[in-house]
Amino acid sequence: MNISLEQAQKIVAAGEKKSKELDVKMNIAVVDAGANLTAFARMNGAWLGSVDIAIKKAETARYFDMNSGEIGKLAQPGGSLYNIEHSNNGLITFPGGIPLKNKDGDIIGAVGVSGSTVDNDHAVASFAAENF
Amino acid sequence: MNISLEQAQKIVAAGEKKSKELDVKMNIAVVDAGANLTAFARMNGAWLGSVDIAIKKAETARYFDMNSGEIGKLAQPGGSLYNIEHSNNGLITFPGGIPLKNKDGDIIGAVGVSGSTVDNDHAVASFAAENF
Amino acid sequence: MNISLEQAQKIVAAGEKKSKELDVKMNIAVVDAGANLTAFARMNGAWLGSVDIAIKKAETARYFDMNSGEIGKLAQPGGSLYNIEHSNNGLITFPGGIPLKNKDGDIIGAVGVSGSTVDNDHAVASFAAENF
Amino acid sequence: MNISLEQAQKIVAAGEKKSKELDVKMNIAVVDAGANLTAFARMNGAWLGSVDIAIKKAETARYFDMNSGEIGKLAQPGGSLYNIEHSNNGLITFPGGIPLKNKDGDIIGAVGVSGSTVDNDHAVASFAAENF
Repeated sequence: MNISLEQAQKIVAAGEKKSKELDVKMNIAVVDAGANLTAFARMNGAWLGSVDIAIKKAETARYFDMNSGEIGKLAQPGGSLYNIEHSNNGLITFPGGIPLKNKDGDIIGAVGVSGSTVDNDHAVASFAAENF
Repeated sequence: MNISLEQAQKIVAAGEKKSKELDVKMNIAVVDAGANLTAFARMNGAWLGSVDIAIKKAETARYFDMNSGEIGKLAQPGGSLYNIEHSNNGLITFPGGIPLKNKDGDIIGAVGVSGSTVDNDHAVASFAAENF
Repeated sequence: MNISLEQAQKIVAAGEKKSKELDVKMNIAVVDAGANLTAFARMNGAWLGSVDIAIKKAETARYFDMNSGEIGKLAQPGGSLYNIEHSNNGLITFPGGIPLKNKDGDIIGAVGVSGSTVDNDHAVASFAAENF
Repeated sequence: MNISLEQAQKIVAAGEKKSKELDVKMNIAVVDAGANLTAFARMNGAWLGSVDIAIKKAETARYFDMNSGEIGKLAQPGGSLYNIEHSNNGLITFPGGIPLKNKDGDIIGAVGVSGSTVDNDHAVASFAAENF
């Protein structure tokens, strides 16, 4: 149960569409069930620093099978996972990374979006994760 | 005074046993007195991101001869070891890493567990550290 | 003068098309004029290790504005650029990375392909670089 | 189609058995289909530097679905994959890494062995790969 390139490219296209609606410029990354990069797009003029963040958000969501922002809640000072970001060659634990599930509910990959506010990042990732 | 592979494998087996009792899927790492990986097991379906965390917890516990969570208390903002996680190619300072002692109390290695809540991680590591 | 996402996605699509003709499974990466990842696709079942190699080939071609294989000729033992691969967080200097030029001959990015023999990798990259 | 921990531990045990027959001290690593560490053992007194090499051999074999030594033949000076070792955070391309296949011939992981001559490393990996 692994995402196909065709599905990954639909997710990227959905993310681009939503980004244009919101008038934002995003980096959109899709990783497969093994957390390997499968599809990626950087919209024209999107932040350069967000390339790596989008990829790390997707990886983070698949590494722990939950939204990246959920991990961030636990990774605050005093939280149970404080500074977990130092593992796995760097995690990103604020919103914008979401696991991808097939019809049976199996996790088949993850999407990560970066380029605007975390609210917009999460909105684009959510829309993309539901349209493939 | 160093842990043997036979001891390390008993620790891993004890960790697996405890994990099944708790119905959790863990990554379990044992390092020796030199903080070198000695035995490792990833239970079927355990989080991908926890491979590295389990190893880093074990390393952290042996690097400083204390439970990884004890270091975490000192590594909070304002604490004496704030952001110590940047050293040694990445530390993990929340619970789940425990030094291993022989009968004489000498530290002969450490165990690190990751894959569930930090409470479960620590419970599995504690059980493993006491049964070898 | 920088490649657009639309151009980058055409390059990826051209690379996929050529790969299917050759019956090979490729990783295809496009970087922009600043050597930043712009579009990426991993064809279903392509080698896991080629994700990083495809990206590094594209980066290498743009870092030095020549085909990755040209650098490899100079990077052999005794050559003028021996072991240049240690720079820039890792280069790949065998064929499969090609600079991308606009109508005026300006370099606007690069493409990197990995997943088969270097001859096939280069053939796919060449086709992609000429069709966007 | 992924290796189970039970299979991975059988591979490690087979590797240990063969190592004792040959009177060598090995590090034995098993990665799953996603190239994630699944089981590991360092025999008492085995070279410290071989921990990382055993893991990298297993990763390398799975990254490209062939024996690590096969890649090494192509990675010599003047060869088509010269200095490929700079990719993927470091490859090891001499013998000792072997893909693992199930009954249907699907690759479900890889084993990597390091601690003696490359002939012994390969012999132990071969025996382990055939006995699980």
